[in-house]
Amino acid sequence: MTKLAGVVGFRGYSGQELVSLLQSHPRMEPVLMEHRADSGERPQPRNWKGPRRIAASAEAVNKEGVEVVFLATPPDVSMELALPMLEAGAKVIDLSGAFRLGTADNYKRWYKEEHTQPELLKEACYGLPELYREKINGARLVANPGCYPTAANLAIRPLVECGVADLGVGIVCDAKSGVSGAGRKPSLKTSFCEVTDNFSAYSILDHRHVAEVLMNSSLEETQFSFTAHLLPIHRGILETIYFRARAGMSAEALVEIYEERYGKEPFVRVYEPGRVPDISSAARTNHCDIGVKFDAETGRGVVISVIDNLVKGAAGQAVQNMNLVLGFAETDGLQ
Amino acid sequence: MTKLAGVVGFRGYSGQELVSLLQSHPRMEPVLMEHRADSGERPQPRNWKGPRRIAASAEAVNKEGVEVVFLATPPDVSMELALPMLEAGAKVIDLSGAFRLGTADNYKRWYKEEHTQPELLKEACYGLPELYREKINGARLVANPGCYPTAANLAIRPLVECGVADLGVGIVCDAKSGVSGAGRKPSLKTSFCEVTDNFSAYSILDHRHVAEVLMNSSLEETQFSFTAHLLPIHRGILETIYFRARAGMSAEALVEIYEERYGKEPFVRVYEPGRVPDISSAARTNHCDIGVKFDAETGRGVVISVIDNLVKGAAGQAVQNMNLVLGFAETDGLQ
Amino acid sequence: MTKLAGVVGFRGYSGQELVSLLQSHPRMEPVLMEHRADSGERPQPRNWKGPRRIAASAEAVNKEGVEVVFLATPPDVSMELALPMLEAGAKVIDLSGAFRLGTADNYKRWYKEEHTQPELLKEACYGLPELYREKINGARLVANPGCYPTAANLAIRPLVECGVADLGVGIVCDAKSGVSGAGRKPSLKTSFCEVTDNFSAYSILDHRHVAEVLMNSSLEETQFSFTAHLLPIHRGILETIYFRARAGMSAEALVEIYEERYGKEPFVRVYEPGRVPDISSAARTNHCDIGVKFDAETGRGVVISVIDNLVKGAAGQAVQNMNLVLGFAETDGLQ
Amino acid sequence: MTKLAGVVGFRGYSGQELVSLLQSHPRMEPVLMEHRADSGERPQPRNWKGPRRIAASAEAVNKEGVEVVFLATPPDVSMELALPMLEAGAKVIDLSGAFRLGTADNYKRWYKEEHTQPELLKEACYGLPELYREKINGARLVANPGCYPTAANLAIRPLVECGVADLGVGIVCDAKSGVSGAGRKPSLKTSFCEVTDNFSAYSILDHRHVAEVLMNSSLEETQFSFTAHLLPIHRGILETIYFRARAGMSAEALVEIYEERYGKEPFVRVYEPGRVPDISSAARTNHCDIGVKFDAETGRGVVISVIDNLVKGAAGQAVQNMNLVLGFAETDGLQ
Repeated sequence: MTKLAGVVGFRGYSGQELVSLLQSHPRMEPVLMEHRADSGERPQPRNWKGPRRIAASAEAVNKEGVEVVFLATPPDVSMELALPMLEAGAKVIDLSGAFRLGTADNYKRWYKEEHTQPELLKEACYGLPELYREKINGARLVANPGCYPTAANLAIRPLVECGVADLGVGIVCDAKSGVSGAGRKPSLKTSFCEVTDNFSAYSILDHRHVAEVLMNSSLEETQFSFTAHLLPIHRGILETIYFRARAGMSAEALVEIYEERYGKEPFVRVYEPGRVPDISSAARTNHCDIGVKFDAETGRGVVISVIDNLVKGAAGQAVQNMNLVLGFAETDGLQ
Repeated sequence: MTKLAGVVGFRGYSGQELVSLLQSHPRMEPVLMEHRADSGERPQPRNWKGPRRIAASAEAVNKEGVEVVFLATPPDVSMELALPMLEAGAKVIDLSGAFRLGTADNYKRWYKEEHTQPELLKEACYGLPELYREKINGARLVANPGCYPTAANLAIRPLVECGVADLGVGIVCDAKSGVSGAGRKPSLKTSFCEVTDNFSAYSILDHRHVAEVLMNSSLEETQFSFTAHLLPIHRGILETIYFRARAGMSAEALVEIYEERYGKEPFVRVYEPGRVPDISSAARTNHCDIGVKFDAETGRGVVISVIDNLVKGAAGQAVQNMNLVLGFAETDGLQ
Repeated sequence: MTKLAGVVGFRGYSGQELVSLLQSHPRMEPVLMEHRADSGERPQPRNWKGPRRIAASAEAVNKEGVEVVFLATPPDVSMELALPMLEAGAKVIDLSGAFRLGTADNYKRWYKEEHTQPELLKEACYGLPELYREKINGARLVANPGCYPTAANLAIRPLVECGVADLGVGIVCDAKSGVSGAGRKPSLKTSFCEVTDNFSAYSILDHRHVAEVLMNSSLEETQFSFTAHLLPIHRGILETIYFRARAGMSAEALVEIYEERYGKEPFVRVYEPGRVPDISSAARTNHCDIGVKFDAETGRGVVISVIDNLVKGAAGQAVQNMNLVLGFAETDGLQ
Repeated sequence: MTKLAGVVGFRGYSGQELVSLLQSHPRMEPVLMEHRADSGERPQPRNWKGPRRIAASAEAVNKEGVEVVFLATPPDVSMELALPMLEAGAKVIDLSGAFRLGTADNYKRWYKEEHTQPELLKEACYGLPELYREKINGARLVANPGCYPTAANLAIRPLVECGVADLGVGIVCDAKSGVSGAGRKPSLKTSFCEVTDNFSAYSILDHRHVAEVLMNSSLEETQFSFTAHLLPIHRGILETIYFRARAGMSAEALVEIYEERYGKEPFVRVYEPGRVPDISSAARTNHCDIGVKFDAETGRGVVISVIDNLVKGAAGQAVQNMNLVLGFAETDGLQ
């Protein structure tokens, strides 16, 4: 028998993707949790029946027996709803940045506002399964990672841990994302005519997501340069990561490091030396695809890391986390 | 010495295009007329100096000696501003639908609201130079045609006038436009992720622009079916027009009809029988490009009519009208 | 235990889609049948294993026990391979136009070349399940319909059969398709820079697919005008179909006609009167979505018919046909 | 009276842009020089007259009195044609990589083939006017820079010359280009369906254009990491350039360095500290737009450099070079 998974923010792009993934999940069934009817829904055929709708309230969670609540909402809404959902007995997987940064101070520094739930912040588990699977297993509250940091940490952390990258030189991460990463709320910046035929850099050196990379890849700010860019496509992230390696490194050895780390991971795929994925490689999948180009003579290396921002970068990883929290097979509903 | 042309609504796509055209016009210089600062402007380099800015007021028009005012504004703003601008001595070229439909009743029927300037409505001249050049010459107030009707009337009117089209069968106009036709104000319908990879029909059989085609091509509503569609491109309109011809017609004769009509027109270009333009043919020009495919055996004909909605469909035609009103060469600033 | 389905032309867009659908089919497993290695394949991760590869030969079909062979190939290749595949005991589902037109004369008229397998042509069954389900059930050789005719026939045939459309006036079908409909072989016409920011009409009044509409919707050529257009998107077809109805018709009655016809069809969805689908409605599904706008006063009607050209317009419908031929549930692998 | 400028390769994207620029040049008139009719031309209206066509031969140059020949051709064709054109008395501006790299050895290293005109190579002048204006003035043969190096050198050279960048850390240039940079010849890599919705890295660390940056910005290979990417847009290049600055640097001082260098340049525009251009900023202009973001605390800096690859990155810069070579005002035909 399937259990209920509530989705708050189901009209947004991550929320839509979540509902779609949950509809084909073998053990869960989605319910739409109405919080604020703030944007339009697409026209549907006659007799179309979407998932059931309930209120985004503790009462509804109790009454319906909702097992897990996904918050595909802005940080302020997540801070408002997480506690009542937990107290009503649901597990909570939050897709916003509200619970990712460990401390209220750190949150304030990067999000420029007070954290209203510092106690919950302590309890929250950072939901990058490839790094923190054990902790996620028993968590009540999972902070689903940001899209950029998912692709960045999976590519960078092995370089740091294995001492491959010269941190004196530092690491550069040049990140490009499709427009759905900016959400579904209309704005001039995401209007068709402003985005098509165009390409732009934003949040140069000061993107909020940087904090998640520093924390999870053990980097100092001075060792890491990050620029986000807006691609004229719907979905997908490609990050081009530059580093300099210690002497004696080779392309083969680099790939081996990733292979060793991720060889058994269902959702990380590594490419042969010199071959790299593009955004199509991971589109509409929960994969993070990683390829390496290395120049042994000079020690310069480039890693290409690709995800679909709405799947491995949001809804897919949230389902992966749900599977861990509820004790399902990690790949349920994701293949 | 150049004279001043004021642009109200200079932040919108038609307004931006107008300013750009006026900047390279040999006899005019644009001034930006601030009415409501309702949307963002693009970042500019250091020391960048755009055109001067003045208020969208009769006083400013008087003081600065503004010769002509372009209203690239919604109909309600145009109805509000046209009279004071005229009274301050400027010619007015309105790019909205406010003054195109001849009578207040007709306006109310298609725009679903009262016309607040019925007197001005009588005076306004419909600014399609290829049809009404003489009248435009002496006009104070020009109603610049809608984008869809510009492409439609130039293609359809000769078919009706020459008795080519069987009006019992009627004429079908299937129209497709780039997104800039919907304006620059952010909305879900023009958000990048909703438009890209997509294509949709809207205002099926009841688009406001239909009225302009009926009036200027002498058609009854029952004789004309029109559907608008949203193309995932920035700019450009292509209309596919279907008709059935009287016996004895040929592709060559059809092209001859257009050639006779438009052979001396600087901004209408006709193609050889069987050859048709695409949106690129007219992009960023003030041309209307017309091609014909005809099946003599069955009498079925198709006309392809293409314009750039921001140029011949808006700002370019407005400049063409200004040239007529001010007695300049009609092609000044448009080649 | 799964059975083998061979795909010839697996590098093309329809072929890729077929392989992908077959990989998630509960009863079949794809094998790639190598005929001509004529275009590139995408890079893949380490240890990636795609489906097995065999030759596109009768021997291989025999040896491996291939149950059904999909020919996602040009007509000449389909004419060459269909017979040997059938003789080797496989069912054949052909995605080209080779076997759709009933007679060699008709083929020659529309494809401008001789048919080399007139005997097989007689045997072939036109694979539009919503119209010919019974015949497909027992067929050895299925001619999978063209993409444009699939959307057109499903929308038009009920209008003709029920006597709704005034055939004196005729029916206009203005069709727009994404670029994948033109195949994967590189050409200037499908180059990115020629297609992006552009939109063009082609095969005006003389597209090969017209023959399939005439045959299956019982129309004379003089009653049907069809123009194809190239949309700057990857996939999807939207057709805007214009007709004039006999007196007394209403939007509700029209929708009822479709509902009666398709109410139990798993892959046709009808919209409420006045509501219409867009290309996103059917993208990446095997649905044909149909919506109606009707003006009772003048009798003018418009039907919007939408499919994904690679799914319901090609690979998905081919799998639907395979399900019928092999006696599976019609929706297997398609939901 | 205008003089004649011949364009070889006029069907390609750079060639088309050249012809278009020359058509509005006050002192020059284009002639199309037919070398190999290797790709299609767009349909044109009746009576359309493009520029005159002559052969790409010394005889034709002599006979017609062609003043300057633009070679918008692959390197091998440029090596074949440069000498005969020069000997026929024309100045030559070559848009290929044939004459950019100074020595035959260097050419062979990066282009993997022998240089067939080593003597001419010595004479050729690298046509980046902002760096080598004096030399270009008197040149017979100008090697028009590559598109990537134009944006890169204009942004990087000041950082190196003024000793701003820590070259121990090195400079990273992450470059993104529209598809027209790959030329007009059809290929799977530039097919619409492969490029749209996608984004990919290519020539990681080993792009031919790297040589032009090393030579002109005085960098060692070990100090410079470059990756090219393919954007799903028609035209435009944006480069994100990362460096670490010596102590005491500030955003204001950085902008001042660029301002001092380029303040009087007509085609380089610098932005206020923290503000950066996007691809639209320079689209369809001959500008290189440069903006800087700097973090004084850590010394990390990012420069955004933007050009239109077909204008400042190819045809526009070629006209700028022609203006210098023929002694015209440098901005003639470019504003």
